[in-house]
Amino acid sequence: MSATPYQQLEQEWRRLHAFRGALSLLRWDAAVMMPRGSAAVRGEQVAALETEYHALLTTPKVTRLLDRAQADLRGLEVWQVSNLREMRRQRDHAIATPVLLISRLARATAIAESQWLAARRDNNFALFAPHLEEVLLLVRDKAALLGQALNLPPYDALVDQFSPGVGTADIDAIFKALSRRLPGMISEALEKQQPQEVLPIAGRFSVAKQRSLVVEVMKAVGFPFDQGRLDESEHPFTEGVVGDIRVTTRYDAADPFAGLLGALHETGHAMYDLGMPTEWRDQPVGRDRGMALEESQSLLLEMIIGRSAPFLRYLQPLLQKHYGASGPEWEFANLHRTLTRVRRSLIRVDADEMSYSLHIMQRYDIEKQLLAGKLAVRDLPEAWNAGMEQRFANRPSGAADGCLQDMHWALGSFGYFPSYALGLAIAAQLWEALRAQLPDVDALIQRGEFAPVFAWLRDNMHGYGAKLPIKELMKQASGQALSANALLRYLQGKYLAESP
Amino acid sequence: MSATPYQQLEQEWRRLHAFRGALSLLRWDAAVMMPRGSAAVRGEQVAALETEYHALLTTPKVTRLLDRAQADLRGLEVWQVSNLREMRRQRDHAIATPVLLISRLARATAIAESQWLAARRDNNFALFAPHLEEVLLLVRDKAALLGQALNLPPYDALVDQFSPGVGTADIDAIFKALSRRLPGMISEALEKQQPQEVLPIAGRFSVAKQRSLVVEVMKAVGFPFDQGRLDESEHPFTEGVVGDIRVTTRYDAADPFAGLLGALHETGHAMYDLGMPTEWRDQPVGRDRGMALEESQSLLLEMIIGRSAPFLRYLQPLLQKHYGASGPEWEFANLHRTLTRVRRSLIRVDADEMSYSLHIMQRYDIEKQLLAGKLAVRDLPEAWNAGMEQRFANRPSGAADGCLQDMHWALGSFGYFPSYALGLAIAAQLWEALRAQLPDVDALIQRGEFAPVFAWLRDNMHGYGAKLPIKELMKQASGQALSANALLRYLQGKYLAESP
Repeated sequence: MSATPYQQLEQEWRRLHAFRGALSLLRWDAAVMMPRGSAAVRGEQVAALETEYHALLTTPKVTRLLDRAQADLRGLEVWQVSNLREMRRQRDHAIATPVLLISRLARATAIAESQWLAARRDNNFALFAPHLEEVLLLVRDKAALLGQALNLPPYDALVDQFSPGVGTADIDAIFKALSRRLPGMISEALEKQQPQEVLPIAGRFSVAKQRSLVVEVMKAVGFPFDQGRLDESEHPFTEGVVGDIRVTTRYDAADPFAGLLGALHETGHAMYDLGMPTEWRDQPVGRDRGMALEESQSLLLEMIIGRSAPFLRYLQPLLQKHYGASGPEWEFANLHRTLTRVRRSLIRVDADEMSYSLHIMQRYDIEKQLLAGKLAVRDLPEAWNAGMEQRFANRPSGAADGCLQDMHWALGSFGYFPSYALGLAIAAQLWEALRAQLPDVDALIQRGEFAPVFAWLRDNMHGYGAKLPIKELMKQASGQALSANALLRYLQGKYLAESP
Repeated sequence: MSATPYQQLEQEWRRLHAFRGALSLLRWDAAVMMPRGSAAVRGEQVAALETEYHALLTTPKVTRLLDRAQADLRGLEVWQVSNLREMRRQRDHAIATPVLLISRLARATAIAESQWLAARRDNNFALFAPHLEEVLLLVRDKAALLGQALNLPPYDALVDQFSPGVGTADIDAIFKALSRRLPGMISEALEKQQPQEVLPIAGRFSVAKQRSLVVEVMKAVGFPFDQGRLDESEHPFTEGVVGDIRVTTRYDAADPFAGLLGALHETGHAMYDLGMPTEWRDQPVGRDRGMALEESQSLLLEMIIGRSAPFLRYLQPLLQKHYGASGPEWEFANLHRTLTRVRRSLIRVDADEMSYSLHIMQRYDIEKQLLAGKLAVRDLPEAWNAGMEQRFANRPSGAADGCLQDMHWALGSFGYFPSYALGLAIAAQLWEALRAQLPDVDALIQRGEFAPVFAWLRDNMHGYGAKLPIKELMKQASGQALSANALLRYLQGKYLAESP
């Protein structure tokens, strides 16, 4: 019996999945292992595989098979129908953006990234501006083409790449609620924390010691070291595919927590990927449902769990074990104060969970204006500084700790930033539901028993892969529509009520 | 102006080169970095890329472009005509072996390899025999198809994959000369060495110390660490492409030389690849001219240079520096005796350079008989043992140190073994020519100045890439036809005349 169109499509995607895995390894290696002088050669390899991937995804054969399979869904299981929808979605996104535009964007962002690095180092926006303009022009073309194909406004089309089914209307509603409450809550938290003494935690923490701590924690969380790795890189990231998943972190010898929190963030991503049904693993439906959900899982582990009182009670003896840490600054109360400090920081990646969303709103407002041509690139630094002044009463001293701090725009990743804020709101909403259904979660975490937490996440979220739209999944998992409410309740409870 | 057929072909091969580089990285990672549980996932990735590589190489478009380009060579440079010939050769080899056969062979050899490991561990040939039979059947099919396409006898067609332009007639002539002389020379050398006292070199040599020694030597040799890496693996190998070339070695804490000699062997391969003209680097003409020449370069550095008196005089202070070695056993004369000991070893990879070729002849005779069906797999152990008895007066105690010692047959690599013996003969022939034209080579090596040696190799061999057939290249580089004469003169001079 010959294969049905649907079966043939599964076979095609198995091949695409293998390509994705190979590409992921090329990127991992470039960031972790590759000799410094090999970037050009690697660039050619990545470009060749990406071009081929795009070509395989957009062949007339795939389109024909999709048409035939979607015309007759009899005999398909529910997940297979969703899989077919995701195949079509991937194909539509790919076909909407011509190879030529993709390769021009790849070249432009490669240059912009290196110029961004130089501009940030020299605190000189003018170095970067022409390259950002070039990238912006190409991103505008891409947004217009994607928007036409998907019947969405240009910015929404970009967001749709990262968080399918979520648009500016959803983001605006959440940001409106947050901007109404957060500034007041931040002031209140700062006032509450101000009299609390925080003893500084000083010392040198070798990479070997930090790594052994991180490995012990990751093992407790459930990271499979027989099918995964932990390494170091300039910026923490997760690459690979289920079966060979690789996270990195970055250690700072003067900071005993940065390496751990970076690894927790990435382990959150990895656990999401690892929570998909095994039989879907090489199919589109077996992928994450976008970056907002990805970020929800990394922020849940890094921010909500990793800085919670029960987690810090679990962690404290491990700090003693691996760092030989002792003294009053290592006692629970001081650890907790250290890791839940609210600040009006200039830098997003240093931000606490209460002010984090404000950093994202700043970027969201600006990137929408840039894309729409309402803000010129040359006026970006001033718009940035004005926004920071208004949101944080804190003006950057220059572009390096202002509009040059993130690499996203250099990489052409417009529409990505909202994923972070959505992710935090989603994390809080899932956390609220999880706590209600798993009442002894604090005791479990304090004992380092993470399995029930991840079992809940698998049952209610990870295991759905890309089967359900984000908003439907959230309603099903939490019983509530996607909103900022749970996040606000969580922040209120943690920072303004609770005394640990 | 649109691209000519030749220019389009160069573009196609640029893409194939990028695929080759990606595949090479996947293999490197699998042997050096990959978590143990990820072999299945990696297998799918390699298979997907290899299938695509094969498909790209055998499209009707490529055939059409080759026909058009070869029909009109006007305007092409000499190297481009050679490049075209090599493109055709790659395409002909690929098209002669159907994808189905390749994938069956890939599956069969993957199983055979793991069963070979188990059989060797348990010293039990019966475990391996059925898998070798399966592989042998498929290799016979492949040899027949390749032979038809290339108009060669089946075994010659297999050899042609590894050493293009060399056939059994050439190999037989060399082996005849060697088998006439070597047994007597070995007896004579053993007699000469027998009264020499060799002090044992004992101790523990940490991987860190061995690595720092190896890195210093590789830097002196000219290995570019900014576009390459040195790592550890179960078996030493070289992977990657020019611009990102990666060698591995294996350290034995009880043996201060094994890691170094393994690294020198692999560095020999790497330097050959690195010696090609830069502008050919992503084209077929910019590849090595087969495995016999590859092995000539690895054996030249590991065996001929690496165990020479001048090299050991260069090495001696480095052993002191990195190992803190001192005492009579570390003196030059003892080092030299240790590293030039002739033995009637049972194991090929432990063999000295004098008896090495006899090990290859043993395998050559047997694999030809296996392929031709003149020797049944079940009779292989006895044929092996009889051959060892006859060649070395030394009978293996079992299959583990007998016919199971090498993995080549498990991998389906019939026709590969002659490359080693050809390589050694070629190395000696090039070395003789190099010494004649670079009379102060001993003084240079003793000072650790390897640049003139590799400049000569680049000018006379590396720089030709795949432009000339092996026999023509040898004639041009050495002024002599390819033969065993130089090897015999070299062995005679080193082991039977010279007193260091």
